Order: sequence, then C-alpha cells, then structure tokens
Amino acid sequence: MPLIFWLVPFSAVAALVVAFLFYRQMFRYDEGTDLMKEIAGHVREGASAYLRQQYKVVIIVFIVISLVLSLLAYGLGVQNQWVPFAFFTGGIFSAFAGFVGMRTATFASSRVANACRESLNGGLRLAFRSGAVMGLVVVGLVLLDISGWFIVLNTFLPETGDGFKLMSITAIMLTFALGASTQALFARVGGGIFTKAADVGADLVGKVESGIPEDDPRNPAAIADNVGDNVGDVAGMGADLFESFLVSILASALLGAAAFFDYGPHMQMNAVIAPMLIAATGTLLSIPGIFMVRAKEGASQKQLLGSLNLGVNFTAFFILIFSLIILYALGLPNYLGIWAAIVIGLLAGIGIGKSTEYFTSSSYRPTKNIAKSSASGYGPVIISGFGTGLFSAAVPMIIAVVVITFTYFCAAGFTFDIANLNYGLYGIALSAVGMLSTLGITLATDAYGPIADNAGGSVEMAGLGPNVRKRTDALDALGNTTAATGKGFAIGSAALTALALLASYFEEVKMFFIKVIEKPDILINGMPAIEAEFIDYVHHFELHIMNPRMIAGVMTGVMAVFLFAGLTMNAVGRAAQKMVEEVRRQFKANPGILEGTSKPDYARCVEISTKGAQKEMLAPALIALLIPVVVGFIFGVAGISGLLVGTIISGFAVAVFMANAGGAWDNAKKYIEEGHYGGTGSDSHKASIVGDTVGDPFKDTSGPSLNILIKLMAISSVITVGIAVSYNIF
Amino acid sequence: MPLIFWLVPFSAVAALVVAFLFYRQMFRYDEGTDLMKEIAGHVREGASAYLRQQYKVVIIVFIVISLVLSLLAYGLGVQNQWVPFAFFTGGIFSAFAGFVGMRTATFASSRVANACRESLNGGLRLAFRSGAVMGLVVVGLVLLDISGWFIVLNTFLPETGDGFKLMSITAIMLTFALGASTQALFARVGGGIFTKAADVGADLVGKVESGIPEDDPRNPAAIADNVGDNVGDVAGMGADLFESFLVSILASALLGAAAFFDYGPHMQMNAVIAPMLIAATGTLLSIPGIFMVRAKEGASQKQLLGSLNLGVNFTAFFILIFSLIILYALGLPNYLGIWAAIVIGLLAGIGIGKSTEYFTSSSYRPTKNIAKSSASGYGPVIISGFGTGLFSAAVPMIIAVVVITFTYFCAAGFTFDIANLNYGLYGIALSAVGMLSTLGITLATDAYGPIADNAGGSVEMAGLGPNVRKRTDALDALGNTTAATGKGFAIGSAALTALALLASYFEEVKMFFIKVIEKPDILINGMPAIEAEFIDYVHHFELHIMNPRMIAGVMTGVMAVFLFAGLTMNAVGRAAQKMVEEVRRQFKANPGILEGTSKPDYARCVEISTKGAQKEMLAPALIALLIPVVVGFIFGVAGISGLLVGTIISGFAVAVFMANAGGAWDNAKKYIEEGHYGGTGSDSHKASIVGDTVGDPFKDTSGPSLNILIKLMAISSVITVGIAVSYNIF
Repeated sequence: MPLIFWLVPFSAVAALVVAFLFYRQMFRYDEGTDLMKEIAGHVREGASAYLRQQYKVVIIVFIVISLVLSLLAYGLGVQNQWVPFAFFTGGIFSAFAGFVGMRTATFASSRVANACRESLNGGLRLAFRSGAVMGLVVVGLVLLDISGWFIVLNTFLPETGDGFKLMSITAIMLTFALGASTQALFARVGGGIFTKAADVGADLVGKVESGIPEDDPRNPAAIADNVGDNVGDVAGMGADLFESFLVSILASALLGAAAFFDYGPHMQMNAVIAPMLIAATGTLLSIPGIFMVRAKEGASQKQLLGSLNLGVNFTAFFILIFSLIILYALGLPNYLGIWAAIVIGLLAGIGIGKSTEYFTSSSYRPTKNIAKSSASGYGPVIISGFGTGLFSAAVPMIIAVVVITFTYFCAAGFTFDIANLNYGLYGIALSAVGMLSTLGITLATDAYGPIADNAGGSVEMAGLGPNVRKRTDALDALGNTTAATGKGFAIGSAALTALALLASYFEEVKMFFIKVIEKPDILINGMPAIEAEFIDYVHHFELHIMNPRMIAGVMTGVMAVFLFAGLTMNAVGRAAQKMVEEVRRQFKANPGILEGTSKPDYARCVEISTKGAQKEMLAPALIALLIPVVVGFIFGVAGISGLLVGTIISGFAVAVFMANAGGAWDNAKKYIEEGHYGGTGSDSHKASIVGDTVGDPFKDTSGPSLNILIKLMAISSVITVGIAVSYNIF
Repeated sequence: MPLIFWLVPFSAVAALVVAFLFYRQMFRYDEGTDLMKEIAGHVREGASAYLRQQYKVVIIVFIVISLVLSLLAYGLGVQNQWVPFAFFTGGIFSAFAGFVGMRTATFASSRVANACRESLNGGLRLAFRSGAVMGLVVVGLVLLDISGWFIVLNTFLPETGDGFKLMSITAIMLTFALGASTQALFARVGGGIFTKAADVGADLVGKVESGIPEDDPRNPAAIADNVGDNVGDVAGMGADLFESFLVSILASALLGAAAFFDYGPHMQMNAVIAPMLIAATGTLLSIPGIFMVRAKEGASQKQLLGSLNLGVNFTAFFILIFSLIILYALGLPNYLGIWAAIVIGLLAGIGIGKSTEYFTSSSYRPTKNIAKSSASGYGPVIISGFGTGLFSAAVPMIIAVVVITFTYFCAAGFTFDIANLNYGLYGIALSAVGMLSTLGITLATDAYGPIADNAGGSVEMAGLGPNVRKRTDALDALGNTTAATGKGFAIGSAALTALALLASYFEEVKMFFIKVIEKPDILINGMPAIEAEFIDYVHHFELHIMNPRMIAGVMTGVMAVFLFAGLTMNAVGRAAQKMVEEVRRQFKANPGILEGTSKPDYARCVEISTKGAQKEMLAPALIALLIPVVVGFIFGVAGISGLLVGTIISGFAVAVFMANAGGAWDNAKKYIEEGHYGGTGSDSHKASIVGDTVGDPFKDTSGPSLNILIKLMAISSVITVGIAVSYNIF
C-alpha cells in the first residue's frame, strides 16, 4: 500500500476529533431559561424516541437482509461471502452519524437561541459549528469505513500478481454500500413522513383554521414539528449524503481498477486510491473552512451568506489545487483529463445549487410569479408552482448532460472513442467525488438550517422578545437559502453517484462471469459460461437499446419512480390527516389550550407522527429493495440496465421538480408575508399557505426520498447481480 | 398490387360516405328555441374564429417547415425530395378532420338538447352519431391518405426486383406523418390552453367567488368554456388520434418491409399491407357497431354504458376474427404469433381504459379517498390527488411492459432470440394497430362526450327545465366515463405508436446509410460510408447503454417532457389569470350581469382564450420540433435513440399521471356534489373545486399534449435522420 494512502485514515480521524471538540464546546453554552430547557427537553425526547423506534425497524430489516444475503452467498446470488457481514458496517456508521447529528442539533438549538440573546455572531458560530459536527462525523465515518475495509481486504485477500486482486477488492467493497443505503432509505422516508405529517397538521389546524402563528406553544403539533426538523432534515439529510459520499468513492475505485487494469497493479492501485485521496483532502480542507465562518453584529443577510460562502469557497479552491497535485504525484496517465472531471463535478455542484436558488428564492422572477398568482386564488397558485417546478428541472438536467459528456470526454483522453470507455466512466464517477469533495463544510451549512430554525422556535415558544427573534430570524433566513442549495446539491450528487453505480454494475457483471468461468458446469442462459460469450452477451445484443427487455426495464424504472413518489405523497397525506384530526380533537376537548391556560398534549402528536412514519415507510422501502431483484430475475442484465437508466434519470427529474416546486411555494408564502399582494391575513396569503402545505411533502418527503431510491435500486442491482445473470427466466 | 389491397381505399370511402350521411341527417333535427339557436351560434362562431386563427399559425409553420425540408432535401438532411410536398397531405387531412368534427359538434349540441325534450334515445342517438362523424372522418381520411400515396409511390418508383423498393416506399411514407403530427401539436396544445383558460377562469370567478352555477349564462366566460370543449376535446382529440392511427400503420408497414425483406417482394408486400388491411377491417366493422348504439327511455347509467359497450365489443370481436383470417390468407409465416400481437394490443387498450376508470371513477376507492381528504382542507385534497395520480401511472406502465415483451416474443416466433429482432419489432408496431383498430367507433364515443356536455350547457342556458336537464345529465355522465377511458386509450396508443416509431428510426438510419453508399465520397463521422461500418456503428457501440451520448440523450428526453409539461401548465396559468381578471372586470363594470338584467360580453372572453392559446403554444411547439434536431446534431444516432426512449417512456408516465389525477379530482368534486362529505356549498366542496381547477390543465392541456410530444419528437427524428448520421459534431 503506498504511503500516501495513510492520508485517508488520518483525515478520517482528524474530522472525528474536530467534531468531538465542537460537540464538547457546545455544552459550555448555557441552555437558557427553564422554559427553554423544558421545550428543548421535549424535542430531544421526541426525536430520540422516534429514532429508537426507527432503528428498531431498521435492525429487523437488516437481520432479514443479512440472512437472505447469507443464503444467496452460498448459491450464486451475490458477489461473495463477505457481503452479509460487511453490509452492517455501512449501516451502523450511517445510523451513528445520523444519531450524533440529530443529538447535537437538539442540544444546540436552545443554546443558539440563548446565545442570540447576546450577539448574532455568537449565535451563528454556535449554530454553524453544531451543524459542522454532523458534517465532519459523516465524512469522517465514511473515510474510516472505506480505509478500514480496504486495509483488511488488501491484507487478507491472496495476491494474484495481476489486476484481479484490486478488481475483486473494489467489487466487494462496493457491495458494502447496501447497508448505508438501506439505513438512508428509512431515515429519509421515515423522517420525511414524520416531519411533514407534523408540519402539515400543525399548519392546517393551527395557522389556517385557528389563526395562531407558527411555532406557537398552544399548538399541540408544535413540538412534533420541531422534532420533525431534526429527524427529517438533520438525520435524514446526513444519511443521504453519507451514502452518496461512500458510494461515489467506492464506484470510482472500482471503475479505476477496471480502467487501469492493463497498467499493472502499481498504477491500478494509484487509480483506486485517487478518489479516496481527493475525498480525504476535501475533508481536511473543510476544517479550516469551517473555522472561517463568523459574522459581525447586525450583519446583513448578504454578509451572513458571504461568510458561509467564504468558508465553502476556500475549501473548494484548495481542493482543486491539491487534487491536481495528487493526480500528478500518482503519475496517472492523462492526469489533466481526470482532474478536469473533478473540476467539472465541483463546478456542476455549484451550478445546480445556483439554479435551485434562482427557481426557489423570492429575489427572482419564478417565485415572484407564484406569489402573484396567489392573488387569483387557490387554483392558480398550485398550477403556477407546479408548472414552474416542472420547468425548473430542465436546468440541472442540462448541467448533468454537460457533466456526463464532458467528464467522459476529458477523462477518456479528450475523445469519445469506444476503446476508452472505461476511462470515460472513471471520469464520470470521479465527477461525483469532485462534487462531494466539499461535503464536510457543505453538510455543515445544511445541518445548520434546522438548528437555526429550531432556535427560532425556541425563542417564540419561550417568549424571548422581538430583539432576539430578529437575530434568530436572520439565522433562519440564511438557513433557508442554504437548505435550498443543499437540496439541489444532494439531488445532483445522488444522480451522478447512481450513474457511477450503473457503470460499475457492468464491472460487477464481468467479475461475476469471471468467477463462474472457474465453474464450467454452471450454465448461463442455458449455455456454458465463457468469456467470449460474456462479450457477446453484454456488449452486443443485451445492451442494444431496442432489446425489448431493456425497454421493459426502462419502463419499469420510470414506473418505480412514480409509484414510489405516489406512495410517499399519500403516506404524508394519510399521516397528516390523522394529525389534523388529533389537533382538532385537542382544541375541542380542551378549550383552555387556545386560551393559553392549559397545556396541549405534545406527546400524543409526536406519537402519531412516529406511528405514521413507521407504518408508511415499509411499502416504499420494499419497492426499492425488491424491484431490482424481480426485474433481474425476469429480464436479466438488459432489464437491469434499462431499469437503472429509467429510475436514475426520471428520478432525478422528479426529485428536482418536487424540491423546487416545494421551495418556491414556501418562499412565495414568505414573500407575501413580507407585505406583498396584501400581506399576512389576505386572501393571497391564504392561497399561498395552501401552496406551501402542498409543497411540504414535495420538498421534504417524496423529493429527497427519490435521491435514496435511485441509489438504492442501483446498489440492490449490484448486490443481486448473480440473480440477473444466472437465474433470469427469459 | 394484390387485389385485397383495394379493401383499404374502399373502406376509406365507405367511412367517409357514412360520415357524410350522419352529417346530413343531423341537420334534419330542429335546433330548438331562438335562445338555443343564439347560444349555439355564439359557440359555433367562437369555435370557427378560433380554428381560423389556429390554422393561420399552422399554415405559416407549415410553409417554414416545408422550406427547411426542401433545403435539407438537396443536402443530406432528409430521406428524399418527396417529403416537403407530401408533408402537406397529412397536415391538411388532419386539419380537415378536426374541422369537420368540431363543426358537427357545434351544430349538434343544441339539436341534442332539443331532441332530449322528446326522448333520451333520440338524444343519445343524435349525439352519438354526430360524434361518429368525426370518428369515421378520421379513420377514413387516414386510410385515404395512406392508400393514395401507396398507390402513387408503388406506381412511380422504379422496380428494383428485390426488397429495396418496398423499403423505400415505406421509409418515405413514414416521413409524411410529420404534417399530421405538427397539426396535431397545435390542435392539442392550442386547444388545450384555450379550453382550460376559459374553464378555470369561469369556475374561479363564477362558481367560487360569485356562487353562480356551471354553464350559467350570466358568466361572461360561459361561451368560451363551451367553445373550448369543442376546440380542445373534439378537434384536439381528433388530430391526436388521426396521427396515432396514421403513424402506427405506416411504422408497421416499414417494419414489415424490413422483417420480410429476405422473403422476396411478394411476401414482403403482404407484410406491408397487413396493417393497412387490419385498419381497414376495423373501419368497416365500426359502421355496424355505431348503428348498434341505442337506448330505451329512462335507461339507467349502466344500460347506457352497456349500449355503447355493445357496439365497441361487437367491432372488437369481429376484428379479432377477421384479422386472423386476413393474416392466414396473406400467408405470412408465424401468422399466429403476429395475430397474437394484434390481440394483445387490443386487449391492452381495454386494460388501460379499465385502469383509468378505476383510478378516476367515484365508484372506486382512490377517488373516494380524494373526496374524503377534501374534508381536511385544500392542502390534503391536492396532496392526495397528486399522490394517487403518480401511483396510478404504474398500472398502464405494467400493461405496457407486458405488451412490449409478449408481442415481441409472439411475433418473433415465440422466442427472444436477437436473430428475430425485426419480426419482434414488427409485432410491437402491430400491437399499436390492434389497439387502434376499433378507432372508428371508440373515437365516436370520445367525440360524443363534449357534444353531450354542450347539450347540457345549452339546456341550462336556455332554461329548458329539470326534466330535459335530467336527460342531458344522463348523457353527460356517460360522456365523462367514455372521456376517461378515451384518454387512457389515447395515451396508451400514443406510447405504443411512438415505440414503433423508435424501432422504425433504425430502419430509416439503415436506408440512409444505403443511400450514401452510392455516394462514396461522403464521409460518415470522418470515415467512408460502408455497410459494414453501419453494422458496427449502429449495433455495437452506438446503441450501448453506457455510451455517454445515449445517456445524455435519455436525460434530454426526460428533460423535454418536464419542460414541455411545465410550459403548458404555466401557459394555462397565465391565460387563466387574464380570464379571471376579465370576468372580475365585467362583473364590476356592469353589476347588471350578475342580476341577469344585462348581457355579459362573451366575445371578449373568447378572444382572450384565443390570443392566450396562440401566444402560448409556440414555445412548446418549438421544443418538440427542435430538440430532436439539436440532439441529433450534437449526439448523433445514439443521442437520438436515448432521446426517444427517455421522452416516450417518461412522457407516457407523466401523461397518465396527469390525466388520472385530473380525472380523479373532477369526479371527487362530483361525488361531493352528490351529497357526500357535506355536499354542495360545504368546505369540503370548496376544497374539491380547487382540486378540480388544478386538475383541469393536468387532464386537458399538459397531459394530452404529451401524447403529441412523444410522437412528434419521434417523427421529427425520423425526418432529420440525415442530420444525426452525417453532421453530428461529436
């Protein structure tokens, strides 16, 4: 193993140490008044109760999957016998990262509220560094997982003297991602249903029917709403990006091993560790970037954003420089083309973020138009938000087209020649690593949002007065901007990562064929498995676009996206209806609640969200896990190829559409609340609240869950490659 | 030319003659009271004015396209020099069919209203036969267009003695479909924007704000709303299915010529005319089917539907028998497998219709649940309709998967073997012909809907009393059921037709290669064009799923669908806002309107819808026409393949989603109006009206326009095949 590899575990440990220091530091701040402590306690309790419940379900699912994988490992179903065990590490690390992030956020928000009583900078620093705990824990644990297993497998697998050893190691490692992916699915879907059932319920009865403000302690669903921010936006987002970061690095490693196979084990090793090193560099550079975020008292929204951007830009800029140096030092041929792929990926992340901002911020025309249409009533505001959302998917998709073609072109040695296919695919995978290389700090800006949001809630519920509220509002508004860009970033990286997985899928198919060559009694589609046949099988007809099995696969892939989105939307609808009924019931049964003389039953609302989430997340999860198995079984490798293309691309489009429509409705409402088109309480405002309510499950449940769907279907296909190859019935 | 071929022009003439008789017959009925005549006059005038305006735009577009095609024909851009001229016939025939259908409908509705004063059966018969005018004109003109050109080309093109002559003829004929496709685009998009701008405007101000009933003559947008039904649902639907019918037959002919190339000119000719003969048989059998539709006085909804179904089932059943006889008589090898493809197509059409009914009729759970969620407010009704719509896309997609794989399997000789690819693709195309073979009568049931709807409007506006209204309501309710199944049918056939076009595309590419072989100085991608290269080019790498150009193509295809849907949604939103403002203005400027003492300015509202439609339909049209050219130019044949796969499959999903969500919202509202969840005037009812308003552009503008988009992009790719092959820049 080359010496430079040790940078990877080192950066992992460094990130975890800094995260621990930030976590400790946070506890030095005071939690504020007794009432604040009490509220924070409720939220923390609710969030922990929910996560405990979720992890119980996850553990059961993990055990079932693990047993199934073990059985398959003794047949021909999965790549090898390491999978069922290693499967766990990704899942446990991901769950731990989500837990730490959520835990930190629930401890931090009241402290941020209290810090805002003294100064804006104090509040910002505390909120941001608390968010950074999750950012650093996620990247740290991913790199720890990767470097740990890489060392183990490299030590224990027998030397082959040629490129097969690294091919095997990377092919095996990629399959480990299933654990992280499954855990992310439950975190995103369950968390998303929880948070939006609470939010929609709280808004519809509290704001619309009873006319009490947001975060009002008289609202029985107020605590559940705050809990939701933590389990959905913090733990869910963390698990999502944990998976993307992990998978993009592993897929790049595998494609690197395949592309540089003929260069011999030394160069191949360098190609394999290159993505790990770039991720490690980004992790190390995120740390000084995080320290650079600070604000002066009375800083404008623009200055606050500038401060965040300074940290992110610093990190990004030095990643570009260091990654060029690393690639040069590794001596990779065409290192400039490979570097270009990383640069394009990083720039694309920024571009997608900007486009999200354009389509969802009330500073620009699209959201202003939605606000304007509110004046014509409920129908028009929904129609225009919907139309704008659909329309807005075009920009990130064009960016993706540019990324795919240009990174391929550059990494393949500035050509589209088929002979260089593997280099091109390595480039596409590396562009995902490039996009995610700043994750340590960008995830901090994401996790910061809900903390600031909850701090505002804490100020409101504890009645700390307008001056403090103004500061937390400034922090919250900043959080909304970063949330929008963060969502675009999560979607874009998920799509690129999933494409990298699709490319890797064919390598896994190849590895599988090679494995069965040693067992010539095994028949593939009724014929003995020989490599010549593999080439014919995979490259000529199987992957022909008019192969009906592939068309059927694409059709099923698109269908899966619509089915999944429909199920999650309806899940929120059902859970929210229960919440509406409960809040109405409490208001009716105890009139003292609305008068402020008696306390609502917060715990009951938390319980409804928890139960709704548990019940409703299973059907979408099963779709994601089982469709690839079924399609592989029926339509084989061609079917799976089509399936993944269909799911990834249409899932990307639907995810962007949902995130942007939801964000735009939300901000159109805020724009009206600023006094436009009649302001708060007007008919326009009421229409815009309906838009926001509809947008809630769009942007926080179905949309982000699709990120997971596209990655999980790809991983599930990779894991069950043997079923598609050996057992397919047609 | 075999003698049996003459059945095709014969059936065309027969259909046109019967249509003419029905048209004449209609005028023997009395138009009713003076007020009814006046209202009908307004609607007719508005519809004619709109169509004149639309055809002006279409003519300009046609001239531009024709000039461009002429220029390209002298380079290498298009298949040949016939295209620019023949392009017109499809467009003119389609426009004429739409005009006749619309004209008949506007003359018929007041007469149907008047006939209902006497008996239900009289009303049903008149309404249905008036609808049948369009059904028969559409199928008649399609078969006339096809048989005419087939005779001309077969006579004038030189004999080659081998299969190349029929390959050329069918390849040329397919390109003629561009005219029908372009005209259909403007009819669907323009008509869809017109009708929904009027409908949404009329509902929001009239029903919601002022509390006056549907079709009330005091509503200034009432006439525009009725005009919209005629230009959108009649002329638009007619143009849409004209195109599908035409294209499915032509694509099957081309694929038949390719599949049976080696069997010699005789058998090849039989394979080419087989789809034409099946379409002709269906057309002839539709005529007795239409005559079978009748009803007894006081017939229940079920009996009325039974009467329609009797006619359709009669037609379908005998098509199955006669098509088996025809295929046997033609002596096609594997005629049973080919027949199976037709049967599967026909059954799939019924299956998709049933699934539409399940998801949109208030007799079933999905729509009932949406009605229930109305009780929780505006947000939940939108969320649940949206979720259900997304979810509902799964069923037709699964049906499509079954159709694609089974028809391929059967027609390829009960195998998936690659060697039989061409037979399999012929089967897929024939399944579209099978699905559409009953078009003469099914389109009659579609066109019947708006006639019955407008008859109800006429009764309401002329104040004919509850007894007559009850009869027209019965007819209208029947129309709503047929409209839902009709929409499913239109979408399903569009998707299958477009897939057939995709398969044909590769034959067009091949023909193009063969053409340039005779000009060896022409370079393809920098190399001399030789057939060996074609095989390598198209079959090996170009169509590999991991070709980045193909992935970029799929991405662009999905993007085009979202962009197009977003643009058309926003177009309705903008046009409806103008309508809302105008109706509000009239009510304010002239309080006598609402009191019923003075007349509103109907013409002004018609004008607003017309202008809105004209202005807003250009951008979506340009997308559909230009994207294939641009993608072909940048990404070549691989890019186009991906583009079409992406557009067809995601467009299919989005179209089903939109049609079903819109239909379900509409019927959930009607269910509440029947007295459930508080009934008319309740809060649930208000929420359900918002759902219906949002659903209007879903089901009548964006959704159906997507049918055209997927076909037009495919045709546009076929036409500009030369650009993708010769000029692509990468």
